[in-house]
Amino acid sequence: MNSFGTKFRVTVFGESHGKTVGVNIDGCPPGIPLTEADLLPDLARRKSGARGTTPRQETDLPQIVTGVFNGFTTGAPLTVLFENANTRSGDYSNLVVQPRPGHADRVSAEKYKGFTDYRGGGHFSGRITLGLVAAGAVAKKILKGVKVSARILEIGGCTETEKFPEVIEAALQDEDSVGGIIECVAEGCRPGWGEPFFNSVESLIGHAVFSVPAVKGIEFGAGFRAARMRGSEHNDPIVDAAGTTATNHAGGINGGIANGNPIVFRVAVKPTSSIGAPQRTFNRETGKVEELVVHGRHDACIALRIPVIIEAVTAIVLADLALLHA
Amino acid sequence: MNSFGTKFRVTVFGESHGKTVGVNIDGCPPGIPLTEADLLPDLARRKSGARGTTPRQETDLPQIVTGVFNGFTTGAPLTVLFENANTRSGDYSNLVVQPRPGHADRVSAEKYKGFTDYRGGGHFSGRITLGLVAAGAVAKKILKGVKVSARILEIGGCTETEKFPEVIEAALQDEDSVGGIIECVAEGCRPGWGEPFFNSVESLIGHAVFSVPAVKGIEFGAGFRAARMRGSEHNDPIVDAAGTTATNHAGGINGGIANGNPIVFRVAVKPTSSIGAPQRTFNRETGKVEELVVHGRHDACIALRIPVIIEAVTAIVLADLALLHA
Amino acid sequence: MNSFGTKFRVTVFGESHGKTVGVNIDGCPPGIPLTEADLLPDLARRKSGARGTTPRQETDLPQIVTGVFNGFTTGAPLTVLFENANTRSGDYSNLVVQPRPGHADRVSAEKYKGFTDYRGGGHFSGRITLGLVAAGAVAKKILKGVKVSARILEIGGCTETEKFPEVIEAALQDEDSVGGIIECVAEGCRPGWGEPFFNSVESLIGHAVFSVPAVKGIEFGAGFRAARMRGSEHNDPIVDAAGTTATNHAGGINGGIANGNPIVFRVAVKPTSSIGAPQRTFNRETGKVEELVVHGRHDACIALRIPVIIEAVTAIVLADLALLHA
Amino acid sequence: MNSFGTKFRVTVFGESHGKTVGVNIDGCPPGIPLTEADLLPDLARRKSGARGTTPRQETDLPQIVTGVFNGFTTGAPLTVLFENANTRSGDYSNLVVQPRPGHADRVSAEKYKGFTDYRGGGHFSGRITLGLVAAGAVAKKILKGVKVSARILEIGGCTETEKFPEVIEAALQDEDSVGGIIECVAEGCRPGWGEPFFNSVESLIGHAVFSVPAVKGIEFGAGFRAARMRGSEHNDPIVDAAGTTATNHAGGINGGIANGNPIVFRVAVKPTSSIGAPQRTFNRETGKVEELVVHGRHDACIALRIPVIIEAVTAIVLADLALLHA
Repeated sequence: MNSFGTKFRVTVFGESHGKTVGVNIDGCPPGIPLTEADLLPDLARRKSGARGTTPRQETDLPQIVTGVFNGFTTGAPLTVLFENANTRSGDYSNLVVQPRPGHADRVSAEKYKGFTDYRGGGHFSGRITLGLVAAGAVAKKILKGVKVSARILEIGGCTETEKFPEVIEAALQDEDSVGGIIECVAEGCRPGWGEPFFNSVESLIGHAVFSVPAVKGIEFGAGFRAARMRGSEHNDPIVDAAGTTATNHAGGINGGIANGNPIVFRVAVKPTSSIGAPQRTFNRETGKVEELVVHGRHDACIALRIPVIIEAVTAIVLADLALLHA
Repeated sequence: MNSFGTKFRVTVFGESHGKTVGVNIDGCPPGIPLTEADLLPDLARRKSGARGTTPRQETDLPQIVTGVFNGFTTGAPLTVLFENANTRSGDYSNLVVQPRPGHADRVSAEKYKGFTDYRGGGHFSGRITLGLVAAGAVAKKILKGVKVSARILEIGGCTETEKFPEVIEAALQDEDSVGGIIECVAEGCRPGWGEPFFNSVESLIGHAVFSVPAVKGIEFGAGFRAARMRGSEHNDPIVDAAGTTATNHAGGINGGIANGNPIVFRVAVKPTSSIGAPQRTFNRETGKVEELVVHGRHDACIALRIPVIIEAVTAIVLADLALLHA
Repeated sequence: MNSFGTKFRVTVFGESHGKTVGVNIDGCPPGIPLTEADLLPDLARRKSGARGTTPRQETDLPQIVTGVFNGFTTGAPLTVLFENANTRSGDYSNLVVQPRPGHADRVSAEKYKGFTDYRGGGHFSGRITLGLVAAGAVAKKILKGVKVSARILEIGGCTETEKFPEVIEAALQDEDSVGGIIECVAEGCRPGWGEPFFNSVESLIGHAVFSVPAVKGIEFGAGFRAARMRGSEHNDPIVDAAGTTATNHAGGINGGIANGNPIVFRVAVKPTSSIGAPQRTFNRETGKVEELVVHGRHDACIALRIPVIIEAVTAIVLADLALLHA
Repeated sequence: MNSFGTKFRVTVFGESHGKTVGVNIDGCPPGIPLTEADLLPDLARRKSGARGTTPRQETDLPQIVTGVFNGFTTGAPLTVLFENANTRSGDYSNLVVQPRPGHADRVSAEKYKGFTDYRGGGHFSGRITLGLVAAGAVAKKILKGVKVSARILEIGGCTETEKFPEVIEAALQDEDSVGGIIECVAEGCRPGWGEPFFNSVESLIGHAVFSVPAVKGIEFGAGFRAARMRGSEHNDPIVDAAGTTATNHAGGINGGIANGNPIVFRVAVKPTSSIGAPQRTFNRETGKVEELVVHGRHDACIALRIPVIIEAVTAIVLADLALLHA
């Protein structure tokens, strides 16, 4: 299903090459100043444009069609719409016959019994994340005193920021793609947010982050490295009455509950599945494995556009927790 | 909150040193043969006993008190109870004053305003996973044709199985603890399970797995390694009409949807927080950072007991998906 | 919150005098033929036009902006929008100072701390039921073999259909309003739908029906009359292997579960709160009870427009049950 | 499913003639003094004993097995169990062949494919309401300043309290049963509780009240009588700045939102289906309509025991709203 959240609930909808993509945000408190302009900075960060991102250019202008009156949220559900304009649907029709490796083409056709909108990935498109980013911008406004920020740590295995462009350029030359690793930090979360077991902070953030297309891993604090530490090294000594810890191997979460230190996690983003280089995969008409060349406009490094989306889903989770614990 | 699932819903309850821990399982179909004996094999795998696990010995005998009639599930909610017998509550009372590093002691006291049951971790105890394992055993019975199996890949950074005992022994000698990495594979999942975005298979399994105490990371398929691959390497070529892929870097999931290949993921388990070696942490009475020595009975390597719990939460997710997609 | 349903989930949004009202429908199976034209017959039944309904005329043309491709539902969320055109917002501004008796004016101002969109009732407007009717039309398409039909039993205490116009005319002459009673019947529901206790068929239909503005009561089968019967009279004798009953005092539901006989219930609709006749109520500026004359365009008998809305919410509940029990 | 509530969530389980019935209560705030003794007064009100109630005598002693420590709730889930002792299962075995009119026997067998626990109604038994009453007693403790009280208005059509015994006696003489009408009032609810549309106060209370076995109707304020009033009569004039109304035809709810005046509703309780008098109904073995005489111990007037259950489910709804709006 396409909804998430208990008291701050986000519902996404739309297709890449349909009329509209959008988001409904229920549970937003009244009295928050909100205009379309407030959404633009985060939407701009998500946008393509850099070398290595898709040449498809969309204006991505949000329209807030419900839930705002006289410049303030009313407490009624917010709806934000984005029109799709720059679509080239001719690019995708052959993918029903020969589904792209690494894409949802095949599972989507199977799941929806052939009725899926296959154009540009349809409802599976990364374009649906526009709604997530819009909801995230609203969530950030609710989160007084909480700062959520994500940045790229690695691109294609390279950790030196200044070399990212050449890593991406090399992939582009080969009509190939690269993945990356993103780190997100949320500062200012109140100790006590989250629940033991099923609504642990890790569970909720993990749930939300894996909703973002191309994410294949998440680790909190020391994460996988923790599995190789001893307890004496991993345990974070508490150093004051506020619960500040000397280290933050726990990533700001103990027993599933925020401990007041920064929540820190890293996310693995796979390389974009859409590549121009020829690939071999099964052709349903011929019944044979054959070469496939994918045309269309794609991101060689989707990870470039993902930090703001990770921030958004994190802010959505934290806004829900903030409202639940108010 | 302590419930999880849509159509197959699991609710856990209890405290480590209270009367009872248990689980309620709603949505189990009628007509499944079920006795307490069916739960014992998985409960035995969770049990302590091996060197490196806690010396606390509990019989862990499940009592099914509702939902079964004449040896079959009725369709009404199942309730499984476990009595706590072997408790030594004297061990824990000082931890209110000087919370243990890496534990939920401090957040729990804060969240519950001093009313938390701090004995043995209370409701934060790993003992609550008894209910998860019982529910997992029921879920496995629902999952006809699906096989879920988890195993330890690493202990304390060591990947050679035969050396695990000496890694643990070394930690025990130092009154310290070690973490580990667990891999879980689910074979036989029907293509089409899961939903794009918020109920992706990764989101649901991630949510459930992070409910297990001590888990700090999860990655599907190639996971973090995928972030360092190119698309041409990562994309799994489809080789037949059934959707079988030559490689399985996607871990059996495309666009959030099961593709019919084995679902594969790895989980990072931190070293047990409870260690005997002295640690320095804040004392709320003296207002100073002071030495703390934790007495009590603990696991030097909780990862040893976790594979069956990971299987259980995975089976819980998959049983829900199987019933939702029936 | 503005969502309802488990597997077929409906989310409403919008304001009476804002840009848009609409609905999001998640969980609709793929492959259902659907165009805007399919929604028009039920939308027309909801429309004003008859003597006794508001003179506000809206085209109420639905736009399906997501979830349909090539004339069929795709399985992705449906979004249906309605533009608001014929709005006269000048009519309502004084109601903040002197809230109308029987309206949500006062509670809305209180709940939303003065940020509510008070124009035409804002999000509390009956206009939001456009989305319910659209979702109901989709739900009816899912419900193969189930027929849901509602009709007016009483207007202003009068049970003779041919006298309804004169009852309404008399109210109009007095610038007053009248209520009514509506009966809804759902035939063809599969025995076994619903759950004991919290998800009884009565609970779910009751929940949905009380979402419709102006509804103040519901009774199933013999309902309040049952409270005056003896068991020997009320019990419905089963007369065949299919479970057909000789009478239907239970309204097609035993123990919360559909028994295969027609589900029958009646709904009490209060008289429209908006009346032209002068009323006395508290003025927040003067601090006194003073006369209030409400201008604007209203329904003298909202019950005339409600049968199709009751059908819609009933179909929404039954479609969810049908999908859950598939 | 057997759970209800968002932030204060109640899960019921058990069977009439199984080992146990009980309830799990999640989301109860920490620090509420609670012992088994606190539950006894409401449980006593639910108990049989009066002429016209079942001769089955159960001690109904609650055991709180989780969630309480040192006499206070901890914030972790509460579990309350009741053992079944006085069961006579021999009474019910023939009802599989010839299901009782008005009971869940037939739908239950159908829904659960013959695996249902048919003894004493199994999970459909009124005995499950023990858990509701226990949860209601906890909810009442959370609701500071809110008073919920229910009383019988009518028994078997008779509205004179002092004649209730003779109405019931007459039914007993005929081995028959009678229904009744119950009124519930909740005073002290904060204006603003509830949501427009799907989570209206009427929707939530209606949902919960229809979970109580034998309830077939509910009306708020003037209810069905409102359908026969004019707006000028029905509208409740506001008389002060606090929103007090001169009349309370709305039953304390406008636009789905509590307005601060007492919430008032009435509930129709059907006559108990179990009667001793012979009835004619279908016999599945003979394939004919035949006489059925039901043995066993029953309530001739279940309405006598229902007021405290209606209070309980109402308090459960209001506690959830209070916590959500905190």
